[in-house]
Amino acid sequence: MKDKQFLMIPGPTPVPERALLAMARHPLGHRSSEFSAIIQEVYQDLKWLFQTGEDVFIYTSSGTGAMEAAIFNLVNPGDKVLSLVIGNFSERWAKIAGMRGAEVEKINFDWGQAVDPDILRERLDQDINKEIKFVTLIHNETSTGVTNDVQTLAKIIREHGALSIVDGVTSIGAIPVKTDEWGIDVIVSGSQKGFMIPPGLAFLTCSPKAWKVYENCKNPSFYFNFGAYKKSVAENTTPYTPNVSLIVALRESLNMMKEEGLDGIYCRHAKLARMMRAGIRSMGLKLFVEDDNTASSVITAIYPPEGISVPDIRKTLNKDYDIVVANGQAKLKDKIFRMGHLGYVSERDVITALGALEASLAKLGYDAKKQAVSI
Amino acid sequence: MKDKQFLMIPGPTPVPERALLAMARHPLGHRSSEFSAIIQEVYQDLKWLFQTGEDVFIYTSSGTGAMEAAIFNLVNPGDKVLSLVIGNFSERWAKIAGMRGAEVEKINFDWGQAVDPDILRERLDQDINKEIKFVTLIHNETSTGVTNDVQTLAKIIREHGALSIVDGVTSIGAIPVKTDEWGIDVIVSGSQKGFMIPPGLAFLTCSPKAWKVYENCKNPSFYFNFGAYKKSVAENTTPYTPNVSLIVALRESLNMMKEEGLDGIYCRHAKLARMMRAGIRSMGLKLFVEDDNTASSVITAIYPPEGISVPDIRKTLNKDYDIVVANGQAKLKDKIFRMGHLGYVSERDVITALGALEASLAKLGYDAKKQAVSI
Repeated sequence: MKDKQFLMIPGPTPVPERALLAMARHPLGHRSSEFSAIIQEVYQDLKWLFQTGEDVFIYTSSGTGAMEAAIFNLVNPGDKVLSLVIGNFSERWAKIAGMRGAEVEKINFDWGQAVDPDILRERLDQDINKEIKFVTLIHNETSTGVTNDVQTLAKIIREHGALSIVDGVTSIGAIPVKTDEWGIDVIVSGSQKGFMIPPGLAFLTCSPKAWKVYENCKNPSFYFNFGAYKKSVAENTTPYTPNVSLIVALRESLNMMKEEGLDGIYCRHAKLARMMRAGIRSMGLKLFVEDDNTASSVITAIYPPEGISVPDIRKTLNKDYDIVVANGQAKLKDKIFRMGHLGYVSERDVITALGALEASLAKLGYDAKKQAVSI
Repeated sequence: MKDKQFLMIPGPTPVPERALLAMARHPLGHRSSEFSAIIQEVYQDLKWLFQTGEDVFIYTSSGTGAMEAAIFNLVNPGDKVLSLVIGNFSERWAKIAGMRGAEVEKINFDWGQAVDPDILRERLDQDINKEIKFVTLIHNETSTGVTNDVQTLAKIIREHGALSIVDGVTSIGAIPVKTDEWGIDVIVSGSQKGFMIPPGLAFLTCSPKAWKVYENCKNPSFYFNFGAYKKSVAENTTPYTPNVSLIVALRESLNMMKEEGLDGIYCRHAKLARMMRAGIRSMGLKLFVEDDNTASSVITAIYPPEGISVPDIRKTLNKDYDIVVANGQAKLKDKIFRMGHLGYVSERDVITALGALEASLAKLGYDAKKQAVSI
């Protein structure tokens, strides 16, 4: 049967019907008063979602575009950037900063581990001349299914005096992010995640402290320019023709989020992860991240049982049960598979996924019942 | 009545139902074989549309993003860029190059005029030391409704040895563009124009000569990186999560374009412009661009009759006839209004727009019949 496919990857994620129907509307003129009223509402709601009093910029781009925006509006060639790397996505900050011409120092943690705050503190304590101007990190590392303690890390960075630049692509709208309260300087996100709409929009907010650094940036980005976007937010518009269809859809999904409430959203994701992890363990499978405290609420990485390959599991789930899950990335390719439970996902979806996984493994010769452990 | 609005602005432009319905589909996984097959087809068709044997990159961004891509992958700070300015959009190249740190020289032509090839040739002839590395220009200047003779200009630039960087945002898919035959080095475009889909994708293709210049670019863009996109085209994918919904819609609109054929598309737009201009003249109104040879096929700029304001005309057309037309930009604001006939527009639409304009002007006290001139 066609069109029955269900995405349980970490993005694109499922989109509610309200948002899909909005996508099918004729595009509005981006300088019309009707669109202006919509984007005004969206700008307000994004502040609520990011838990910030500062403006949230809407870029027509992938999440990586907002990452480029952060680096190309703040970092000058030669600036020293410390990158906290715990997987494939957190490493992207280091790559972008390197391309910008920054002097990048990486602290690598084992994939599957979170950043150890003590190691960060120790490194920053050594930096007595305050040469490190920026520390990049990720909130939720999608390649491994690990969540960093951003609250603690941002505090350590703030005490040193560097700017914290955070990838919140898979955390905003799914796990708690208190931008202002935690003192995060820059955080970015993307539309195809907690925002429950298709890919194509990215978001960024920056602190007054980061704004001062922007004002001294040489040759910043034109397309992602902080100044141009700030001016546009004040005028309920965007500097260039935005993806009006996605912004109209975003209004729908933000309305749904407000109906559920921030606590409701966060609790739902936490519960889905607990369900998923309990189910995986009860089948006798091994989780890539054993530690429940650092395990992500939005994606679960799982080792295949011995003798059964990741491609076979993915193929069976896709072909027989119309469920798409992700492979491991880079050095984890074919070593783990990853099931997303991010955005428009309910308990029923997790039960479905677990049932389909059990049935797939049975077809591939694994007897989950026999291996089952009590939880 | 709601939802009856018809856009006759130069973008977003009307979107055919086939493309709108594709937008409403659940997003595909961007690494799935299904999506891979779709983007492979789209990449092929874009080469046809751009009339090039080189790859066409698909950026998830506004058209301005592709302009940034061109400058931030080719121009080094300090490089000399010559910008041919005939209006608000052609001036954007100069702004982006300036932000990149280039040494920018502008040749300004009167708004409403096309670039005079002799003036360009003269300036380049003076550049005996070949200091000018890039010449930026626009194909169709949307702010004034003027089309440059890109074929002639690109030839002059090629003979000098500089790279030609062309804004084809409102020309590709509407008026003839022979990228390879004309020797254009870089040309960019955007989805909400001739491509007949909503805003959110941008396109860029570059010549082998431009590619060599890219390879010597210091600190290029990461998000728009030529190398990353070229590698991805070869693998029928994109470097970062693209706007899958728009790419699926683009396949639909490209199929429609292939059914019509390039000549069919070009002739239709040329005919729509002739109809529009004849209709405007027959009402006794004055065209902003009198010269039929440089007048754009996709947008017509019109002076209001004496004593009637541009805002009143736009308001009446919008409120009473559900037709949205554009104001003038920058120094032309409230001096002219502009009617787009770009993309998914038929002869019926032009007749409708002319009829509604005549009726609107009558309500505002202008008697078109009395002013009518024979054409």
